[in-house]
Amino acid sequence: MEFSLEQIAGILGGKVEGDGNLKVNRLDKIQEGKPGGIGFLANEKYEPHLYTTEATAVIVSDDFEAKSPVPCALIRVKNAYNGFTTLLETYAQLTKMSKSGVEQPSFCDESSTLGEGCYRAAFSYIGKNCKIGNNVKIHAQVSIGDDVTIGDNCILYFGVKVKNGSRIGNNCEIHSGAVIGSDGFGFAPQDDGSYRNIPQIGNVILEDNVSIGANTTIDCATMGSTVIRKGAKIDNLVQIAHNVEIGENTVIASQAGISGSTVIGKNCVIAGQVGIVGHIKIADNTTIGAKTGITKSILKPGQTIFGYMGMEIKDFLKSYSIFKNLPQVQDKLKELEKKL
Amino acid sequence: MEFSLEQIAGILGGKVEGDGNLKVNRLDKIQEGKPGGIGFLANEKYEPHLYTTEATAVIVSDDFEAKSPVPCALIRVKNAYNGFTTLLETYAQLTKMSKSGVEQPSFCDESSTLGEGCYRAAFSYIGKNCKIGNNVKIHAQVSIGDDVTIGDNCILYFGVKVKNGSRIGNNCEIHSGAVIGSDGFGFAPQDDGSYRNIPQIGNVILEDNVSIGANTTIDCATMGSTVIRKGAKIDNLVQIAHNVEIGENTVIASQAGISGSTVIGKNCVIAGQVGIVGHIKIADNTTIGAKTGITKSILKPGQTIFGYMGMEIKDFLKSYSIFKNLPQVQDKLKELEKKL
Amino acid sequence: MEFSLEQIAGILGGKVEGDGNLKVNRLDKIQEGKPGGIGFLANEKYEPHLYTTEATAVIVSDDFEAKSPVPCALIRVKNAYNGFTTLLETYAQLTKMSKSGVEQPSFCDESSTLGEGCYRAAFSYIGKNCKIGNNVKIHAQVSIGDDVTIGDNCILYFGVKVKNGSRIGNNCEIHSGAVIGSDGFGFAPQDDGSYRNIPQIGNVILEDNVSIGANTTIDCATMGSTVIRKGAKIDNLVQIAHNVEIGENTVIASQAGISGSTVIGKNCVIAGQVGIVGHIKIADNTTIGAKTGITKSILKPGQTIFGYMGMEIKDFLKSYSIFKNLPQVQDKLKELEKKL
Repeated sequence: MEFSLEQIAGILGGKVEGDGNLKVNRLDKIQEGKPGGIGFLANEKYEPHLYTTEATAVIVSDDFEAKSPVPCALIRVKNAYNGFTTLLETYAQLTKMSKSGVEQPSFCDESSTLGEGCYRAAFSYIGKNCKIGNNVKIHAQVSIGDDVTIGDNCILYFGVKVKNGSRIGNNCEIHSGAVIGSDGFGFAPQDDGSYRNIPQIGNVILEDNVSIGANTTIDCATMGSTVIRKGAKIDNLVQIAHNVEIGENTVIASQAGISGSTVIGKNCVIAGQVGIVGHIKIADNTTIGAKTGITKSILKPGQTIFGYMGMEIKDFLKSYSIFKNLPQVQDKLKELEKKL
Repeated sequence: MEFSLEQIAGILGGKVEGDGNLKVNRLDKIQEGKPGGIGFLANEKYEPHLYTTEATAVIVSDDFEAKSPVPCALIRVKNAYNGFTTLLETYAQLTKMSKSGVEQPSFCDESSTLGEGCYRAAFSYIGKNCKIGNNVKIHAQVSIGDDVTIGDNCILYFGVKVKNGSRIGNNCEIHSGAVIGSDGFGFAPQDDGSYRNIPQIGNVILEDNVSIGANTTIDCATMGSTVIRKGAKIDNLVQIAHNVEIGENTVIASQAGISGSTVIGKNCVIAGQVGIVGHIKIADNTTIGAKTGITKSILKPGQTIFGYMGMEIKDFLKSYSIFKNLPQVQDKLKELEKKL
Repeated sequence: MEFSLEQIAGILGGKVEGDGNLKVNRLDKIQEGKPGGIGFLANEKYEPHLYTTEATAVIVSDDFEAKSPVPCALIRVKNAYNGFTTLLETYAQLTKMSKSGVEQPSFCDESSTLGEGCYRAAFSYIGKNCKIGNNVKIHAQVSIGDDVTIGDNCILYFGVKVKNGSRIGNNCEIHSGAVIGSDGFGFAPQDDGSYRNIPQIGNVILEDNVSIGANTTIDCATMGSTVIRKGAKIDNLVQIAHNVEIGENTVIASQAGISGSTVIGKNCVIAGQVGIVGHIKIADNTTIGAKTGITKSILKPGQTIFGYMGMEIKDFLKSYSIFKNLPQVQDKLKELEKKL
């Protein structure tokens, strides 16, 4: 996509200084600007780059005064940083939502329906009785099972898999390779040491504005639903087991794992590689540090928890600082023993 | 799928109280029952829901006596819990195995053969010289390489990848996105600091009744085979490296990783996020707690191991309880020092 | 593929003892040799197997003298181990690179170009304006977005996803299900507790000779590039976040995770399940043990780091050995207290 500087000034409510017909097709850092790119200057530390940049244009704030000749066009806006962010968001949105129509070959059972403005890429697969809203972008190699509902403005990137019966809200983004609705891991031990499958007949519900990372797996419920509440953001390679509930606006970083039937509150932040056992509750506004293991419920909201077996972070760090000095502690003990 | 209450009573060897022609198409929890659903009552704690449920029918035990009028039909069986479980299993089995035939476009090299009752979804891919048994369900976006053999009654869900030469037994379930037979991670360091690939020409063998979780990766052997013995159950996002052997009926939970050439015994339980180094042995009936790191062989069967570097669990918990109190231990030590 | 013993002797610069017209199509371990296979004998411990093997041929060193009659043909070479390795590499290379041409149905936008000797499998997808070099092997279910460049001799296995704008060098191998260029995990907290997407418009660069494991995820940069330098080898299920840089010839084992904007030096070895926080630097030649957590920059090159919060390995192991004995330490302390 290519825009003239006049078009961009229009989007940002700004004013061009230079040739408004120049075209740009890329957002650049000012220090790495190249012809065809547009950058921004918000931090005066970067000002020297303005006088040498090869970018076609740079966004600056209304009150900015150049100290030397500038080799590119300028777009003046109220606040250069906000202007650039708006441009970023517009660009990202246009890029993400630009595709529409149907590429062939693709597969969609005739019992399923899609709204307007949707994109179905080549090799995308939609099973029976699905209801898919408007402006849903279904990329190559996506598989959608039977009886799935998807709201408006969702994006399913390359190779996303959505199993039978899943319900997805509006404005969700599901990144490449994520699996929504894989079987829960349930097996009943038999007398001979073997295991028998416990049927997993529930589903997964993603509410509105949920983001699911690449190659993340979310198991369906044994019965009922595994639920990701609205606004929750889940990173790559995360495991969400059967019957888990993730609260509104909770963020879960990469490679964390949540075991079966655990309920996590609202506005929590769960860092990378955290592990949480099954059948417990985590209170609202809990922060859990990277690699922490959580073995029991956290009932008091607003705590920060850390460590191999999950302690209040200050307590863990105190104990850990002594752990690091255990050889000296032991030496001291030996000294005392001798003295006695 | 829809069944009349008479049909269900027939499957369960039970008796309908009410209209046997009523139809249900869903299994519900009694407290969440809706028209068209059938629930069960086994725990008296849930009895109050029976008198208000909107479900079409509820399964109860022969000797159950209602204390109020019941708004739905009943199916009386010997044991309500077992009856419901049978129904669950029947339903899950019907759902899983219901698809058959070939959807187009799909790809199957003419040198490969499939048995009866198989399903090949659109966009499934089968390479050369594969032998696939009866009732194998191959869902959309599954890729099967050359020279693969698969037994009877296996299910390969959306986007499963099975590389050249893999051998899969009967009744295996491989969940979405799992990779069977990726290259082992083997590189020989060269004098200049770079690495040269060590060719990985072995394969993967899954014996009968094996379950592999979503997005799990199982590397082929360098030479010979990586083997998952019969009845083993492996969860999502697990890594099994080259030349590993997993014993019969061993269970491995999500995000665990087993390094190259390690041999794990029978009937072990390995919890989530465990890491096991390469070239060691784990005895039969070993239980390994979540997040445990295993750095050396475990030769005595039947132990429970836990902790960052894998100790007998009681020992770890004793040490950890003192770790939590290290600040007090240090204070005490300082006190003693002063006294002396 | 089938080769006569004469052909193999030609490849290895060796000499056949026996019938040079015999054909083999498989590399076997000598102890598991079967007709049609060729093994090798380099370690005298395995010599007894030579006299009983069912393999069609065995590679031995020039100076080897058999102590009993040998039931198979021999190929004599300077060094049996090196000879077999050469054969392994030749075989693996032939197997990997043997496919070429286009299977149908596959999808390639007309604006994209491929060099000579490429393979495009059925159900592979290539978007707009891609430039793909010679001898690139694109397996089934691979998705390549728009504006992607790929060098020569690369292999993209089943179901690899490469997002828009990625740049891949020569001789790269990307294993099944890996995702190159998923969105970085960036969200700006809003006053109401919800999060707003931070647009991720950068890309991923893989330099030459890079290997990426199965189901690994590499996020694109927020702006600029996430870079994997030449010769780096990354295992399965690894997470590489936005704007990370991985140095030349650095090796990262399975299930490790590198957070955003962290820069890792050259020739590092990062073991399995390691977690590294964002915005730090790791010096060249650093070795990080399995399951280690790294919370701050490592500036001195050549160290070996280990432990839950990343200490110099000797220090960690000293502290840990006392941790294991904390109950005795406590007992001793109580004893001293009593004495006073």
